[in-house]
Amino acid sequence: MVTGGRVPVSPAPGVAARRQHLRVDGPRLLARIERLRAVGATPAGGVSRLAFTPDDTRGRELVASYLRAAGMGVEVDPAGNLIGRRLGARPDRPWLVLGSHLDTVPDGGPLDGAYGVLAAVEVAHVLAEHGVEMGFPVAVIGFMNEEGAFGTPGMWGSHAFAGQFDRTWLSGVDSRGEPVRDLLRAAGGDPGRVPRAAWPDGSVGAYLELHIEQGPVLETEGYPIGVVTAITGRVTIDVTVRGQANHAGTTPIALRRDALVAAAQFVLAVRDIAGEDGIVRVATVGCCTVEPDAWNVVPGLVRLRADLRDVAEESLDAAVEALRRVAEKIGAETGTVVELAPSQVVQPMACDGRLRRLISAASDALGLPYHHLPSGAGHDAQIVGRLAPMAMIFVPSQGGRSHVATESTAPEDIVAGANVLLHTVLGYDPEVMRGHQ
Amino acid sequence: MVTGGRVPVSPAPGVAARRQHLRVDGPRLLARIERLRAVGATPAGGVSRLAFTPDDTRGRELVASYLRAAGMGVEVDPAGNLIGRRLGARPDRPWLVLGSHLDTVPDGGPLDGAYGVLAAVEVAHVLAEHGVEMGFPVAVIGFMNEEGAFGTPGMWGSHAFAGQFDRTWLSGVDSRGEPVRDLLRAAGGDPGRVPRAAWPDGSVGAYLELHIEQGPVLETEGYPIGVVTAITGRVTIDVTVRGQANHAGTTPIALRRDALVAAAQFVLAVRDIAGEDGIVRVATVGCCTVEPDAWNVVPGLVRLRADLRDVAEESLDAAVEALRRVAEKIGAETGTVVELAPSQVVQPMACDGRLRRLISAASDALGLPYHHLPSGAGHDAQIVGRLAPMAMIFVPSQGGRSHVATESTAPEDIVAGANVLLHTVLGYDPEVMRGHQ
Repeated sequence: MVTGGRVPVSPAPGVAARRQHLRVDGPRLLARIERLRAVGATPAGGVSRLAFTPDDTRGRELVASYLRAAGMGVEVDPAGNLIGRRLGARPDRPWLVLGSHLDTVPDGGPLDGAYGVLAAVEVAHVLAEHGVEMGFPVAVIGFMNEEGAFGTPGMWGSHAFAGQFDRTWLSGVDSRGEPVRDLLRAAGGDPGRVPRAAWPDGSVGAYLELHIEQGPVLETEGYPIGVVTAITGRVTIDVTVRGQANHAGTTPIALRRDALVAAAQFVLAVRDIAGEDGIVRVATVGCCTVEPDAWNVVPGLVRLRADLRDVAEESLDAAVEALRRVAEKIGAETGTVVELAPSQVVQPMACDGRLRRLISAASDALGLPYHHLPSGAGHDAQIVGRLAPMAMIFVPSQGGRSHVATESTAPEDIVAGANVLLHTVLGYDPEVMRGHQ
Repeated sequence: MVTGGRVPVSPAPGVAARRQHLRVDGPRLLARIERLRAVGATPAGGVSRLAFTPDDTRGRELVASYLRAAGMGVEVDPAGNLIGRRLGARPDRPWLVLGSHLDTVPDGGPLDGAYGVLAAVEVAHVLAEHGVEMGFPVAVIGFMNEEGAFGTPGMWGSHAFAGQFDRTWLSGVDSRGEPVRDLLRAAGGDPGRVPRAAWPDGSVGAYLELHIEQGPVLETEGYPIGVVTAITGRVTIDVTVRGQANHAGTTPIALRRDALVAAAQFVLAVRDIAGEDGIVRVATVGCCTVEPDAWNVVPGLVRLRADLRDVAEESLDAAVEALRRVAEKIGAETGTVVELAPSQVVQPMACDGRLRRLISAASDALGLPYHHLPSGAGHDAQIVGRLAPMAMIFVPSQGGRSHVATESTAPEDIVAGANVLLHTVLGYDPEVMRGHQ
């Protein structure tokens, strides 16, 4: 049992040999995931630990106790980020930061975010237990409000960490009418000092985030480990198709300006620009509403929302341009007007090549096959990446499911991912990060 | 001024010459349309005279006064139909029935239904004024509740008239919770005696209905008169597309089962089976809802409602079969299941050829160009047609609009249509209807 931030140290044989055989304590990690899952558990079997809620605070307090058990100094920064620090022998050097987030979506799963934080705690704990001295300080961070609870901006804590926090986010109320400043204060933050949560340029040597894939690629391809190449950029396009509402029985086909017929062509055009033979990696029309939405009226207006993602910004730009041309063609052919309003542009963020090689080497050393893949979902890492080199490790999601109660990863994959994180940390050398990529 | 059901009779020259030069009193007809429009007028400029409402009753009382002014005996039958009768010299012969309905949709226009009744009243009035004796009895009917107010069955009165009324329609409450029996009683009907509203087989020689087109064909083609060939049959198909909801960022295109992509293909297939080169005259997908309808989730479920119309039942059947094959193909190609549930089948009803020739001859005699066209909308005539030969006359709808406040027809077209109805009545001979078509 560990108390007071001190960890028993095992006797040390040759350092290299000892490090090579280090492994995380799998049962401890799995047990902690289960304990955290119980905080905010819902009747449907999911987890609702939305940021700024009492359950989120309880979850963060539980993880704080784990950080202390790993011998770390623990604090909550003004933006609400939970931070554990281990200064080590060279506190002057840039930090290696490990982290993810602890909050969930409503009725979400037990792993999205929480897994990455608990695995990072486990890595720190193992290093401390075995008396491994790193040549740099290590921080473990549970970022605040990654999911954007109650309409607040998501990736809240990582924005503050990276000095990218927009102070207007503190004004006003959330979707429930609660003042955001009060929420942050209740969660242990300090609204007046949020800018101080920013880490200075050069203070972070690298950031590593372990996360479930939230997609089906690793499971489908049969790899336990994913080395993330980049976090995809995103463009959201609001599409308005204006036709002419008319009687469905009396208006001849040739005289129609059917907004849904035009919208259907656009939906298929969005699919055509995506995938193996397309311009962007994925593209989706997720929203569609029809007016007047009556069975006996030719639709007069259709609103679509399209979501385009790719790791290359040029590809996103090219896809939007291609869709503009298609929209004009569809409009001319159907007698409608198809308007495109791109918004919510998120720039792609590449993972650092040196860190990716470290992750690959760690996987190789552990005998774990790995697969390079982009992240289609957004992560705190893409924000932290604006401050420091970053990389991400993925483990498979069963059925590709996430943000649902049935979100799960096989226990052996959970442990494998944590071991890859551990050995990436063990292989990390701040000097490497100073050289050219 | 006319009182007590008696009409002044003008002196009679040669009967044939007099008939040939008879015309409706255009200003009187137009003024009555305006007066009726004021009953239930809405702030938006429309008319809300829903069946069973006080405004509907007020409108029917106004029209009853016009029927009496035309020298007709007036009654309300047990189903609520407003009936004016003129027995004439041969009350033993089958009736020539003229009619339409007086109720409107919410915020509807002044002409849909009302025009046909007021023009029929005008025809009866002109015949009486000029002392024209017909060789058969004439009835003018304002059918009850054609539009199906508050979720009650539409074409209510014509069903009762034709002996097609379903007694279950009297049980229960409308969408506002009002008992239907009470509503009928308040409107002057008699719920216990609705079957007596049915006219016996053979009692009706023919039914004529004048109506606005509710579509753009006559205006587009430049004809003041439409001779309706048939009232289109209709099939409604509820379509359920079942795919798999998934994260829009992390699910590769090749692994998706996108219900909206499949639905878009189906929407285009529905369009392809309609029109000049299609199987049916018109086909429309008017309703579309997506689940979960979130911008970052691949749609898992889409519900469509398709409406197919044609004058030939075989064509409707063939179109449904064609769509079943398309649905199977789309499902196989997109990894979805596309289920079709046809319902609300309304059989087409052809207009009587002899009556159509009478209408054409009347138009010719008046120097009015006419165009043969099907009715895409439903009408009381299609129900009355189950009891007796029927035909319909259309006049142009400006912009093809109906069921809206801006529903309108040029005054000269309104008067022209009424004159065609008048001369069709003048040309009608019960003996002709006994021969073969």
